[in-house]
Amino acid sequence: MTDASTAPAVANIGVVGLAVMGSNLARNLASREGNTVAVFNRSRDKTDLLVSEHPEAEFVPAYSYEEFAATLAKPRTAIIMVKAGAATDAVITALTEVFEPGDIIVDGGNALFTDTIRREKAVRETGINFVGAGISGGEEGALTGPSIMPGGPDESWVTLGPILRSIAAVAPDGEPCVTHVGHDGAGHFVKMVHNGIEYADMQLIAEAYDLIRRGTGKTPAEIADVFAEWNTGELESYLIEITAEVLRQVDAATGQPLVDVILDQAGAKGTGAWTVQTALSLGVPVSGIAEATFARSLSSRPDQRAAGAALPGPDEEFEVADADAFIEDVRQALFASKIVAYSQGFDEIRAGAEQYGWSIDLAAISKIWRAGCIIRAQFLNRIADAYGEAPDQPLLMAAPYFADALSRGQAAWRRVVVAAAQAGIPSPAFSSSLAYYDGIRAERLPAALVQGQRDFFGAHTYKRIDKPGTFHTLWSGDRTEVEAEDTH
Amino acid sequence: MTDASTAPAVANIGVVGLAVMGSNLARNLASREGNTVAVFNRSRDKTDLLVSEHPEAEFVPAYSYEEFAATLAKPRTAIIMVKAGAATDAVITALTEVFEPGDIIVDGGNALFTDTIRREKAVRETGINFVGAGISGGEEGALTGPSIMPGGPDESWVTLGPILRSIAAVAPDGEPCVTHVGHDGAGHFVKMVHNGIEYADMQLIAEAYDLIRRGTGKTPAEIADVFAEWNTGELESYLIEITAEVLRQVDAATGQPLVDVILDQAGAKGTGAWTVQTALSLGVPVSGIAEATFARSLSSRPDQRAAGAALPGPDEEFEVADADAFIEDVRQALFASKIVAYSQGFDEIRAGAEQYGWSIDLAAISKIWRAGCIIRAQFLNRIADAYGEAPDQPLLMAAPYFADALSRGQAAWRRVVVAAAQAGIPSPAFSSSLAYYDGIRAERLPAALVQGQRDFFGAHTYKRIDKPGTFHTLWSGDRTEVEAEDTH
Repeated sequence: MTDASTAPAVANIGVVGLAVMGSNLARNLASREGNTVAVFNRSRDKTDLLVSEHPEAEFVPAYSYEEFAATLAKPRTAIIMVKAGAATDAVITALTEVFEPGDIIVDGGNALFTDTIRREKAVRETGINFVGAGISGGEEGALTGPSIMPGGPDESWVTLGPILRSIAAVAPDGEPCVTHVGHDGAGHFVKMVHNGIEYADMQLIAEAYDLIRRGTGKTPAEIADVFAEWNTGELESYLIEITAEVLRQVDAATGQPLVDVILDQAGAKGTGAWTVQTALSLGVPVSGIAEATFARSLSSRPDQRAAGAALPGPDEEFEVADADAFIEDVRQALFASKIVAYSQGFDEIRAGAEQYGWSIDLAAISKIWRAGCIIRAQFLNRIADAYGEAPDQPLLMAAPYFADALSRGQAAWRRVVVAAAQAGIPSPAFSSSLAYYDGIRAERLPAALVQGQRDFFGAHTYKRIDKPGTFHTLWSGDRTEVEAEDTH
Repeated sequence: MTDASTAPAVANIGVVGLAVMGSNLARNLASREGNTVAVFNRSRDKTDLLVSEHPEAEFVPAYSYEEFAATLAKPRTAIIMVKAGAATDAVITALTEVFEPGDIIVDGGNALFTDTIRREKAVRETGINFVGAGISGGEEGALTGPSIMPGGPDESWVTLGPILRSIAAVAPDGEPCVTHVGHDGAGHFVKMVHNGIEYADMQLIAEAYDLIRRGTGKTPAEIADVFAEWNTGELESYLIEITAEVLRQVDAATGQPLVDVILDQAGAKGTGAWTVQTALSLGVPVSGIAEATFARSLSSRPDQRAAGAALPGPDEEFEVADADAFIEDVRQALFASKIVAYSQGFDEIRAGAEQYGWSIDLAAISKIWRAGCIIRAQFLNRIADAYGEAPDQPLLMAAPYFADALSRGQAAWRRVVVAAAQAGIPSPAFSSSLAYYDGIRAERLPAALVQGQRDFFGAHTYKRIDKPGTFHTLWSGDRTEVEAEDTH
């Protein structure tokens, strides 16, 4: 490091980047016993504002990277909270110039895990430890306790573990919502999948709301009561809770339910797409997350929706005979579909761990999502139980608790998908989850025909059910079968 | 170029890479009036074998890049037919060393379009023209006439156009199945989407087969007759035709239908995944292609299928009352879902063209797919008509012919999706296509609730239906609404 500064090394942790997330995380850190927090921002006024507005935090402000480094006790530990991409790279480069081997740089932004792998490798050359850490919970979580998913080398965890445990959300059983996920990009990978599951969960809730509203004619406020009621049972979760809040909200300007005044175009920041893109590379079907991501992009294409508005729906009006029974069906369909979405998400983590050589404890992952993050839910305890009992199980939804829930719920689930198809109500996530369920349990799939077609037009060969080897039918010849080189 | 060789420049076109695809393409070229074909392969024996086995082709063999270049008349034009990836890069590098400004290098392999963009840019520095060309039709198409989708600079088309037109498949109206798709990566992009559509088409056919078989108890041979019958109507296509062939095939060893002997795990070479990954980056919902890609990966996960086999299906047996009526419903569902898949695919091409600055004639694309490629079909004339009449239409499925077909078919389509959900037969592509149809025509989507949730937990803001601007509700405060910076 440079000797430009003579500031005393009094801080055990530093934060670079003092926008809302960074400021809140810094305040969270400062509020915990034993932490002294150095803060640095590229533009000086943000640093000064934070320090002056929060004298209780006793921040140690720094105005250059040199000074920042000098205020940190060794091993220096800094959390970067800046925009993902070039800004993150710039800060990493600057820190590596003033830090020393054994120091720790944490990227707390929403980096793509492959960028994190690349950065970890580059920083490792300098002897500095680089940790990509997914931080979930938004601005409020950063301040009061987020769910934290750090990757990076084991060595970093010795210093970083206690600090992160001090600021993380606390699950109902008292455990802090942080664990060392795995090496290099493992933390950001798991955070990415967390967000993908969030997309699916939100889309499923939206479909449930839409079906109930169009099927029963209930008002948003009445449906808010339904969700509030659901939040006392097996669906209990933050997203169900806030859905009730959003549906109950009345727009002051019009007196209408707010949900009717909001433009029906859902935005996205890209992590849903990343999750699906990564799953495709890994060969993991994450249809629930994909349909949720596509539903958002479909909603945000007004020119196409205008053109499509003329396409006809079913002739009959949709009205369910027994509203309460239908609502209970929708609840069960929601729970069943949610099980599928989580099962697919955990599959992706398992496949990612295998692909990238991470040792990831899936039970621990579900536990650190129980508080602080958007998908926090009761339900995650059941996932932790399932992976606790059988860490290597290939299919979460086949674990006893979930298999039992799906068995009980499947009839209702089918009725809901049927009602949606008959009524012309788009339910891509419900129907896709059911199709996945029926696919994974099928004794025999028409994939055999697909493979036959592939062999016909591309000589892609096939395997047989009755003997080993790889075969090809001479389709353009005498149609006999020959043994072939495997070109699957 | 080097002067290492004194061979006379007698060839107007060369082929590098003489595996089956390259050999067949070289033979195709040599068979057309006016072409003299230079051939070169890294290992000499492949070259010699091809030349000796096909004296009628009058190939001009070359045994080094220098000699290859020397045998080609200017502007030298060479088609590379080697493995996508590093092998392609190595050949390009070697050719740029012996070629001169104005010469043309064509990559006829299955490159990812972003690689093609990168390569075009690098090669352009040398003054040589680089053309990424998608070639569809497999080994047989290469020999007898493929559908060809070249990108690259306009200049290259002057020389290359007549050569490619001479070897391309010929559509029923006599037009060769090749057009200059657009600049740099446009050709490989369009080829990628072609393959994605192919995945969707195959999965839809597989679902149709599965439903008919399980619903009516017909044998594969009987269902072959159904497909053969369908092939005389609006579904007429190569894939429907070969489906009948595959279903009719009897396994000699067991006397069983071949489709029952083939292991039901469908392979994939990755272009389906590319198509979906690219669509996700472009924000285009291609749910049909995604579900088809996922269906293949689901089928190829035996450990999960074994675990899922215990999950229960519906109680009742599935048997349709009127087999003929059901088969007609399935036919209509297949046609409607196919329209959705193609509409989504053409959407992706439109979005890609916009993103990458390509000027792509969508009518011309549908025309060059009418022969030589796997998805060749009658149907493509209707797409050409639609884009011919309204090149800028935002939604193909809303064009009159397709809107009409969907109107007529939607009731049957819904019955099929309902039957599949009730019977527990996985139909991800059918149901996803219907959900897309109902989504794109929906007057109001529950995306408004999703956006409300996003504003609640992440202050992501929302738009209103009744006034411009971007808004945020102070959910953690007094729940009033404030104008906000747009952070969608």
